[in-house]
Amino acid sequence: MERVSFPPLSRVAICGGTHGNEMSGVYMVREMQKRKVDQAGSASITTVLSNPRAVDACRRYIDQDINRCFTDALLSAPLTDSSPYELRRAKELNAQLGPKGSQEAVDLLCDIHNTTSNMGLCLILYSVDYITLHIYKYIQSKMTSTPVRAIQLDIPLPEAYSFESVGKHGFALEVGPQPNGVVRADIYNMVKEAVDLTMEWLQAFNSGSSFEGGEVEAYTTERSVDYPRDPTTNEITAAIHPQLQDNDFKLLRPGDPTFLTFSGETVKHEGEELYPFFINECAYYEKKIAFHLAKKITLNFPSISGHSVSDGHF
Amino acid sequence: MERVSFPPLSRVAICGGTHGNEMSGVYMVREMQKRKVDQAGSASITTVLSNPRAVDACRRYIDQDINRCFTDALLSAPLTDSSPYELRRAKELNAQLGPKGSQEAVDLLCDIHNTTSNMGLCLILYSVDYITLHIYKYIQSKMTSTPVRAIQLDIPLPEAYSFESVGKHGFALEVGPQPNGVVRADIYNMVKEAVDLTMEWLQAFNSGSSFEGGEVEAYTTERSVDYPRDPTTNEITAAIHPQLQDNDFKLLRPGDPTFLTFSGETVKHEGEELYPFFINECAYYEKKIAFHLAKKITLNFPSISGHSVSDGHF
Repeated sequence: MERVSFPPLSRVAICGGTHGNEMSGVYMVREMQKRKVDQAGSASITTVLSNPRAVDACRRYIDQDINRCFTDALLSAPLTDSSPYELRRAKELNAQLGPKGSQEAVDLLCDIHNTTSNMGLCLILYSVDYITLHIYKYIQSKMTSTPVRAIQLDIPLPEAYSFESVGKHGFALEVGPQPNGVVRADIYNMVKEAVDLTMEWLQAFNSGSSFEGGEVEAYTTERSVDYPRDPTTNEITAAIHPQLQDNDFKLLRPGDPTFLTFSGETVKHEGEELYPFFINECAYYEKKIAFHLAKKITLNFPSISGHSVSDGHF
Repeated sequence: MERVSFPPLSRVAICGGTHGNEMSGVYMVREMQKRKVDQAGSASITTVLSNPRAVDACRRYIDQDINRCFTDALLSAPLTDSSPYELRRAKELNAQLGPKGSQEAVDLLCDIHNTTSNMGLCLILYSVDYITLHIYKYIQSKMTSTPVRAIQLDIPLPEAYSFESVGKHGFALEVGPQPNGVVRADIYNMVKEAVDLTMEWLQAFNSGSSFEGGEVEAYTTERSVDYPRDPTTNEITAAIHPQLQDNDFKLLRPGDPTFLTFSGETVKHEGEELYPFFINECAYYEKKIAFHLAKKITLNFPSISGHSVSDGHF
């Protein structure tokens, strides 16, 4: 593949508290605001606490999950007096950092999340975006404290529902395991390291550095698995099996245990070999997801270089 | 010490969901109700979902922490239209399983809790109660899957605020680490094992068995430590230090790290050697407690025996 040249990434947003009980992002953003971080080399940095009311309440959301509100359809629907708080706030964020899909949108949006799953550090990426793939490769090559992986969502931009889709380029940083409402220093430090590495890459890129192309592995969701449920009450009747718990991204083979019912029986995996992730994520109980199952794919991407600001390519 | 003889423990309550997002107790109680467990030998078993509205909302509580509502003062205060839901529910529970301090109260009340702290399995006991100390010793001698410890609260019964104080004898089972809103099979199995062992002990005791006295270790709280906070905003400025995190009940010495600030500085323990527990418990952020510090004490207790039902001692 040939080298691809990109304009500088001049406007960057680092966001946390999109889910108000995922504390790494809340404290990361507050710390950056306290230290008045608003510049990384030639790039301007905006730090945003995305869902302040949910942060105050220490809940995922007030009325509905804001991280499902950033589709074109929802962002363009008129507000009424009874519109949920998060729809209102999503429009504010879109006005501040977007509009999504426009030339006015920030060049890069990084949204910080936590999971109760043992997923280490994951970048969640939309389709194939050379910029975010290069950032992923850079973080992965530098971080040693935890495994770094990528999850690719194959959703066209207008239907992309999560906050990072508002930026011209964007990714979610998903880091765990951490209970909701709790901040762990080890997890906070992973987030800080990944944000620092993103800034480091950004400065080099904006200074005109070139980055070698190559290939990376990523996971792409095939399907989701719900908990076994009581057909009458719809309540769950089993927990994730101890042999699956905390084993995110470890290949699940037919016959491997997936659930242990509250009366002690083991449920086994049926179907093809796939990689489980988001195993026992707290917020997915209400979404009826015990875990996702993914295929591993290889993504190729070209060498890239930024026009340095001094190139005068504006 | 001499052998002490007790009447049978004929009425027993197993309770869960006192905090609506601590899932082991919720699923344990539901499973017992599904299996219609209402008898253990000669004892009748009542299973109770203590705070059903909080369970439905998957929150610790709706209006206030119900597990602080069982003082004599609160239980006897008249209800008004604006009384918090939990005060109302506490009175209902006191009517069903108490009244606290009366002859009508259940003989034994076991209330199941979870913590995000790495505390293994703890029995929380009020003052010196030979029955609960014997149950503690029994569980400790039989369980191998996790450390079993006791925390003793030295509060006179009228001021005792937690649900288990409604029974003639009572203890809380506190098991972790588990995120709020999540059920882990390993933690669920520990709770199940402890409940099963309690029932086993109960049946032997009610059949007239004798149990040897002895001594056990317990932890008793000296003081609590809050997070470092910003004097202006009152927001926390540090997380539990990685060297303290997950090290509940490991002796904390002067100079040992306690916090790591979000800007990277280490805060150290000052004062005497004590045992930390409830380290980074989610629900204690709002109570301004980062961890408790305890002394280790030794409790002596006599041999006991139950009058068997066939003794005709009623």
